[in-house]
Amino acid sequence: MKIAIYGYGNIGRGVECAARQNPDMTLTGVYTRRDPAQVQTKTGVTVYPASEILKHKDEIDVLLICGGSATDLPELTPMLARDFNVVDSFDTHARIPEHFASVDAAARAGGHTALISGGWDPGLFSLARLYSNAILPQGSDYTFWGRGVSQGHSDAIRRIPGVLDARQYTVPIPEALEAVRSGASPVLTTRQKHRRECYVVAAQGADKAEIEKAIKTMPNYFDEYDTTVTFITMEEMKRDHSELPHGGFVIRSGPSGLEGEHRHTIEFRLTLDSNPEFTALTLVALARAVGKHAARGDWGCKTVFDLAPAELSPLSGEELRAHLL
Amino acid sequence: MKIAIYGYGNIGRGVECAARQNPDMTLTGVYTRRDPAQVQTKTGVTVYPASEILKHKDEIDVLLICGGSATDLPELTPMLARDFNVVDSFDTHARIPEHFASVDAAARAGGHTALISGGWDPGLFSLARLYSNAILPQGSDYTFWGRGVSQGHSDAIRRIPGVLDARQYTVPIPEALEAVRSGASPVLTTRQKHRRECYVVAAQGADKAEIEKAIKTMPNYFDEYDTTVTFITMEEMKRDHSELPHGGFVIRSGPSGLEGEHRHTIEFRLTLDSNPEFTALTLVALARAVGKHAARGDWGCKTVFDLAPAELSPLSGEELRAHLL
Repeated sequence: MKIAIYGYGNIGRGVECAARQNPDMTLTGVYTRRDPAQVQTKTGVTVYPASEILKHKDEIDVLLICGGSATDLPELTPMLARDFNVVDSFDTHARIPEHFASVDAAARAGGHTALISGGWDPGLFSLARLYSNAILPQGSDYTFWGRGVSQGHSDAIRRIPGVLDARQYTVPIPEALEAVRSGASPVLTTRQKHRRECYVVAAQGADKAEIEKAIKTMPNYFDEYDTTVTFITMEEMKRDHSELPHGGFVIRSGPSGLEGEHRHTIEFRLTLDSNPEFTALTLVALARAVGKHAARGDWGCKTVFDLAPAELSPLSGEELRAHLL
Repeated sequence: MKIAIYGYGNIGRGVECAARQNPDMTLTGVYTRRDPAQVQTKTGVTVYPASEILKHKDEIDVLLICGGSATDLPELTPMLARDFNVVDSFDTHARIPEHFASVDAAARAGGHTALISGGWDPGLFSLARLYSNAILPQGSDYTFWGRGVSQGHSDAIRRIPGVLDARQYTVPIPEALEAVRSGASPVLTTRQKHRRECYVVAAQGADKAEIEKAIKTMPNYFDEYDTTVTFITMEEMKRDHSELPHGGFVIRSGPSGLEGEHRHTIEFRLTLDSNPEFTALTLVALARAVGKHAARGDWGCKTVFDLAPAELSPLSGEELRAHLL
């Protein structure tokens, strides 16, 4: 299967690496809206101007669109789904129905298959929610994120005057996790589920007390959480906080038996050293499934909910039944 | 959807309870090879002789076959798949390809859809293995079982002379779990992964030292494990060991990045108060998917790998995307 990357940021670079772990995939190019001469890939794969992508249709079975959900993907995915089978990682949960509708219309019009929201949340976490809801119809759902870097919260801190750089870690609270795992179906407030750890480099002469107050009282981002703020040097930031780890937990618990006398807990957990590289590995596996749907003429927009698990694997049905079932 | 139960043991009773948690399901009957007059259901659903099931074809969209994997299911599932859409929980991993082939032939000949091996292992654990293998192609797989009752090991102890009753718990070893979760991909021996806890009621005058020795040296069942044997009274057995809890962990870890410089761990965990009731809840969700495949004429034998996740849910695609994605 020939795949290509549209947009060469953290996830694009992750797809470039992920393709090398999948021998049935060939990465045929990176397409960028920047000047290709300025883009240095990790593996030497050719960089083309995005404007010329239609000339390369024959070299692309599935195109992985690696852009931001705020402004890039709502525009790019419908545009490209008309001419290519595509995969994206659109992650603005509230706007998924709208994105689905526009991508679906474009893919059907062009006779292509698209998959949206194919990362880990939405994506693998959504699968955990769906399977566990189908099996425990009367249960309660919990999602915990972290320990991991939230880019949105880090950006919010960077916008405070006097802040040179910042990194925010979302941290699940162990007591809340244990209460959920016990099957007790606790009611938990925002503050009880997660805390927020902030590492901040302040400008020389900046009022650190003011910065700390500005962070801790910031509406929506921090005011409903227990937040710690630690001031560090730029050197410490580079040395200790240059990675993008993340992960989390999806847990559902619910009863069985005539009177609900037994309880069950289903837990799905991810511990990721690199959020963008893991997202990229997921997108590549989903691209394999999209290629299979496209090959049999099953056009339109899909989500992880619509793909049979076997379609994500390079193995045959016989191999899967013999070795993984 | 109209479902029925064939075989009324622990799992059959679990399906009877599970049906009540799924408002889109109607349980239309229990079919038994015993004398129906001797079978008392938990909810009052009608019990029919198994021999008359063909008279009730119109009352059964999907038949859940609740029998043992050793001798019942290899015979029953192919026989019934000719006339009904069926689901079973065949769990003899090594014989799945053979069972699949015979059920597939019968289902295709009769124009029906069958799903085999639909519990939690095989079943949900298999799904965890498949998704995590597709996403982390270069990783290592680990499965831990328990803490839970192993019926096979309990039965093996009961066959020792002087043993009146026995219950064996398989227990994962926390240090091994933590080593796997760390992403270190350790090589673990059988003894390092699980230990076995045995509770035994001995006959009056039986030689307890001999029984303990017979258990601990039993080939395949116990000799490769650290095993503890605790003698208890029949009253203690009934009071403390009458439930069938189980569960376990499927963990895969693997690298990403150009040089494998980042590691990721995917963990799926079940904690079950009642192994048969949870298995039954899973079978009912799978029956929903089988009904959808049958309704569109997609005949033959399936496994959990072949069913799109959305098909297990009673919700529409729109509802799933809006609320669970």
